[in-house]
Amino acid sequence: MAQILNLKKTNDDFNTEIRKMLLLCQEDIESTNTLILEKLDSNVPLVKEIASYLVLSGGKRLRPLLTSCSYHLLTNDLDKNKKHIGLAAAVEFIHAATLLHDDVIDESQRRRGNLSANEVWGNKTSVLVGDFLFSRAFQLMAKYGDIGTLKILSDTSVVIAEGEVLELSNDRDPTINEDLYFKVINAKTASLFSAACQVGGISAKATNKEIESLKSFGTNFGMAFQLIDDAIDYASDKNSLGKNIGDDFKEGKITLPVILAYIRSNKKEKEFWKRTIIELDQKENDFYEAFLIMTKYKCITDTIERAKHFANVAIDSLGIFNENEYKSALMNLIYSSLNRLS
Amino acid sequence: MAQILNLKKTNDDFNTEIRKMLLLCQEDIESTNTLILEKLDSNVPLVKEIASYLVLSGGKRLRPLLTSCSYHLLTNDLDKNKKHIGLAAAVEFIHAATLLHDDVIDESQRRRGNLSANEVWGNKTSVLVGDFLFSRAFQLMAKYGDIGTLKILSDTSVVIAEGEVLELSNDRDPTINEDLYFKVINAKTASLFSAACQVGGISAKATNKEIESLKSFGTNFGMAFQLIDDAIDYASDKNSLGKNIGDDFKEGKITLPVILAYIRSNKKEKEFWKRTIIELDQKENDFYEAFLIMTKYKCITDTIERAKHFANVAIDSLGIFNENEYKSALMNLIYSSLNRLS
Repeated sequence: MAQILNLKKTNDDFNTEIRKMLLLCQEDIESTNTLILEKLDSNVPLVKEIASYLVLSGGKRLRPLLTSCSYHLLTNDLDKNKKHIGLAAAVEFIHAATLLHDDVIDESQRRRGNLSANEVWGNKTSVLVGDFLFSRAFQLMAKYGDIGTLKILSDTSVVIAEGEVLELSNDRDPTINEDLYFKVINAKTASLFSAACQVGGISAKATNKEIESLKSFGTNFGMAFQLIDDAIDYASDKNSLGKNIGDDFKEGKITLPVILAYIRSNKKEKEFWKRTIIELDQKENDFYEAFLIMTKYKCITDTIERAKHFANVAIDSLGIFNENEYKSALMNLIYSSLNRLS
Repeated sequence: MAQILNLKKTNDDFNTEIRKMLLLCQEDIESTNTLILEKLDSNVPLVKEIASYLVLSGGKRLRPLLTSCSYHLLTNDLDKNKKHIGLAAAVEFIHAATLLHDDVIDESQRRRGNLSANEVWGNKTSVLVGDFLFSRAFQLMAKYGDIGTLKILSDTSVVIAEGEVLELSNDRDPTINEDLYFKVINAKTASLFSAACQVGGISAKATNKEIESLKSFGTNFGMAFQLIDDAIDYASDKNSLGKNIGDDFKEGKITLPVILAYIRSNKKEKEFWKRTIIELDQKENDFYEAFLIMTKYKCITDTIERAKHFANVAIDSLGIFNENEYKSALMNLIYSSLNRLS
């Protein structure tokens, strides 16, 4: 019989929910970390050094948590072959590879409060170690996956790469429309969240309908997560996960608050965005000015509204699953992700 | 009964042997090209444009030829599921991905006589389209491969990435020893030649012993191929496959002729290598001077001797296979690869 749990909205913040989830999935995450550590090894010391720097630098293991929760959402069975552990590690390696390449593309200097790998070892090595991590991910899939999970993860990798190029093609262009932006964040963030959930479900022998639900859950949670991340940059210095307020603005990064602000701006304000975002010619008070325009046109509030829409779709997509503590954890994760801005 | 063929050394040049091989494997290569064309498609036009620029720019399809010949070496059976075609395309995509990333790392301006992709579209896009091609390779493996071929190709990708980092760690250091250099070219070139042969064999249901032989053949042919390539840069302007004589020297690239020259040089000559290769401070007649030192110490001749050693091992590794026209083609390919310098 399904266990009845209290699914009312959590008041805890996102990091607290993550910690609760880490406790709930402790055994899985420890196994995943052990496997990750083992697979960071390389005959070439520099590869191990850089890969470890990134992968062991305090990421939240959010994607492995999604894989683990999606697995246990469906079954109490022991996963004898550690399939979902291997796939969780593969997902984390894909994530790490894209972070390395992302930082090269964005010329980022910091990652999670530390110097970025490209800043320490240079762009060239970062590209190559990204390739290494990516290859390791496929080794893990070859060992732990089946044809279904392999298809999902390789399709996702294609989508991520295409999304990155799409984003680069629209670099510093605040006139792109919202749908195109959704396409980019779907590819860059939501697709891997979705894949993480799906491979967890497949490892638990999910039905096609259940896999579809997990796919929808992961995608929509990923969209909500990214949009809240966008909003945080213009709205809060709390719970910012190593991200400094104003970073996106300084880099001229196109996010939903900017897209909404630009389209709603008058002629003079549009000139402001052109100078600060397109030409990246920024003065001391520009970030505050940006914040004022965004407030005037409710761009941050509306970004959060969009995030809530995706969060609601994600929550409903869990409707078909029996209630248990893993379902509760996934739902609280979504609620608390919206709390990141409270 | 095995068909008895004339296996005496070919006098034809490498490009002629490649053309003969393309005729022999015409059907396979046409199918591979069709599949490649299909998989170059992308929702993001820029991805398709760049990927096509590279993949369709007149590569010899040497690796798909190795897959095709290795398949037909073993069986006359029709490959109903087009397994070896899909895997040949996957190998070519891995090759293309590494070329894109290589050119970014080496800051190359030209590739096969054309502008390199990074020169036309910039480094960032090249990195991302490389990731796309790499992901496409794994999609193809997921569709056409099995657990065995997937393991070989993902292991090979790890080895290639490690080899690239190893090479970068020893960038412009002519004091590295020959074994370390062999390790680099084994990883960067020979491992994918070897994988191309192995997956062809596996598609033809090769025995473990046969796969071992194909592995050895591919590896040793790859080593010989790369060493001849190294020698060509200091010795010939013929058959240079879009590569200009003196390019490696100009870039301060460490290849076997330089490694041998450095270790055999006297103090004054060592100063010359330090200035030209390590410091990359080159004057007009330096390439000629480099050529003279190499001739004095027989560095080019000895590079060719090393290549012959690997070529001989490759030829012997085909000994277990019955004679047929595909075996003959593979052997002639090796002989002619040595002819590239005649």
